[in-house]
Amino acid sequence: MAASWGLAIHGGAGAIPSDLDAQRRSAIEASLATITARAGEALSEGRSSVDVVQQAVEALEEDPHFNAGHGAVLCSDGTHELEAAIMASDGAAGAASLLRTTRHPIALARLVMDTSPHVLIAGEGVEEMGRAGGLEQVENSWFRTPHRAAALQEVLQEHEDGSTHHATVGAVALDTSGDLAAATSTGGMTGKQPGRIGDTPMIGAGTWADRNLAISCTGRGEAFIRHATAAQVAHRVSLLGQSLAAAAQEVLALMPPSSGGLIAVNAEGELVMPFTSAGMYRASLSSTLPLSVGIGPG
Amino acid sequence: MAASWGLAIHGGAGAIPSDLDAQRRSAIEASLATITARAGEALSEGRSSVDVVQQAVEALEEDPHFNAGHGAVLCSDGTHELEAAIMASDGAAGAASLLRTTRHPIALARLVMDTSPHVLIAGEGVEEMGRAGGLEQVENSWFRTPHRAAALQEVLQEHEDGSTHHATVGAVALDTSGDLAAATSTGGMTGKQPGRIGDTPMIGAGTWADRNLAISCTGRGEAFIRHATAAQVAHRVSLLGQSLAAAAQEVLALMPPSSGGLIAVNAEGELVMPFTSAGMYRASLSSTLPLSVGIGPG
Repeated sequence: MAASWGLAIHGGAGAIPSDLDAQRRSAIEASLATITARAGEALSEGRSSVDVVQQAVEALEEDPHFNAGHGAVLCSDGTHELEAAIMASDGAAGAASLLRTTRHPIALARLVMDTSPHVLIAGEGVEEMGRAGGLEQVENSWFRTPHRAAALQEVLQEHEDGSTHHATVGAVALDTSGDLAAATSTGGMTGKQPGRIGDTPMIGAGTWADRNLAISCTGRGEAFIRHATAAQVAHRVSLLGQSLAAAAQEVLALMPPSSGGLIAVNAEGELVMPFTSAGMYRASLSSTLPLSVGIGPG
Repeated sequence: MAASWGLAIHGGAGAIPSDLDAQRRSAIEASLATITARAGEALSEGRSSVDVVQQAVEALEEDPHFNAGHGAVLCSDGTHELEAAIMASDGAAGAASLLRTTRHPIALARLVMDTSPHVLIAGEGVEEMGRAGGLEQVENSWFRTPHRAAALQEVLQEHEDGSTHHATVGAVALDTSGDLAAATSTGGMTGKQPGRIGDTPMIGAGTWADRNLAISCTGRGEAFIRHATAAQVAHRVSLLGQSLAAAAQEVLALMPPSSGGLIAVNAEGELVMPFTSAGMYRASLSSTLPLSVGIGPG
């Protein structure tokens, strides 16, 4: 039975350790469940998919457990540069990158989508646009958490390969009008060079929506760019008529091992959340399926 | 008969006026012919496609007739911000954006591809990387020409819609080893907001290469982003088995009228240069086809 509405969110994919502290694990699961339940309620009340994915991502940005907004990872110079994108099934799209003071990057991406002739704008100019549009600004240090500061030190000292620090947050939704939307927001990868733009704000790489489906990706951004991952899943569905699940699995299988994962919803409300990394923080809910929260495989 | 090598270049698509001054027209045609002949010679001597597209685009950047490098259009604030991307058939890709002092943006994209774990880097950091790598820096005003300064005034005064000012330059090539590469470089669109990133450095939107083909696009960048144009052409070929010509025509037909055009070459050396704008500066040459230079339709 086709669902009348459906949504999925993610809080990033990566080498999520099996020995994740029980308290932290519970807090993350509770956060994913709360945000998903609230988004589901909004959809069931007839809110638009584009509003709902934005609000879900704003909530994820606010949670310090996830690499977006407060809790974002650090660049090699110890500062934060954030980026986000949003796209709707009618082809409208907005994205912002190299953000340093915008509390909610996804809200700025939405502002670009709604008010600019451009799709992607980066740096001070777009933050000034957000400020003029009433979006809250914070000190760059507001995004910092002790957990992320420690992670940067580990990466800089090459104690590990940084594979756990590519996470991102995102949301996809089908609303009761049949419209679809995707939103993605991230602090990027730990220790990235300032100025690096990842797959998140690149429409067709990390974020995509069309009449058939909406997709938000997370993982090693450069791999998603080189494979045009989100667009490739969409084209397998639209051109070959593959199922959403098969298309997503096949594209991830073409990418290097452990590249990451994605969440997607189609116009029938079908939800998929595949990943090739050890884990992916995720949750889903639809008018026909109960709330599901996951971290590891299965 | 499959060509053993082939290439195409473009100098931008747009509402190229039929009353283009004869002297300017001759100069542009001569420039396209010279750059193409030189690139063809390099390919016939066994040079790699990635080197040849870079060199062709560097020559186009240096020619003030084209919107890239010297002769780039101006942002709304009267300064120049340039961007470029390069991609090879093995999936290697590099791009740079929001450049203000790098004489050859495509050389910086190549440096990113060859030396960085990232695909796209923007702003001062990547220019510093270029400087450290020996790439020539110039004053921002070096890119300026009287023609582009006048165009900005027209756009700012809304005397016209700026439709002639979305141009870009690009090159695609198949080399004698069977490898493919695409390169694109631009000053963006006249009167753009500083910080705007277009389709050029967005892998899968304005630039793409894989084992089957290489593509460089030009036109209204935001339309190419929203349609993931280059990736969509590639996926029609790889997934549906469409001919390169049919795939390119069909994708352009899905886009708004007069969006622009693209050049592409496939692994058989087939060359296509379709556009939906009034004109596109273009030229092609292969081991089996003579030099062809065009501006208007047909």
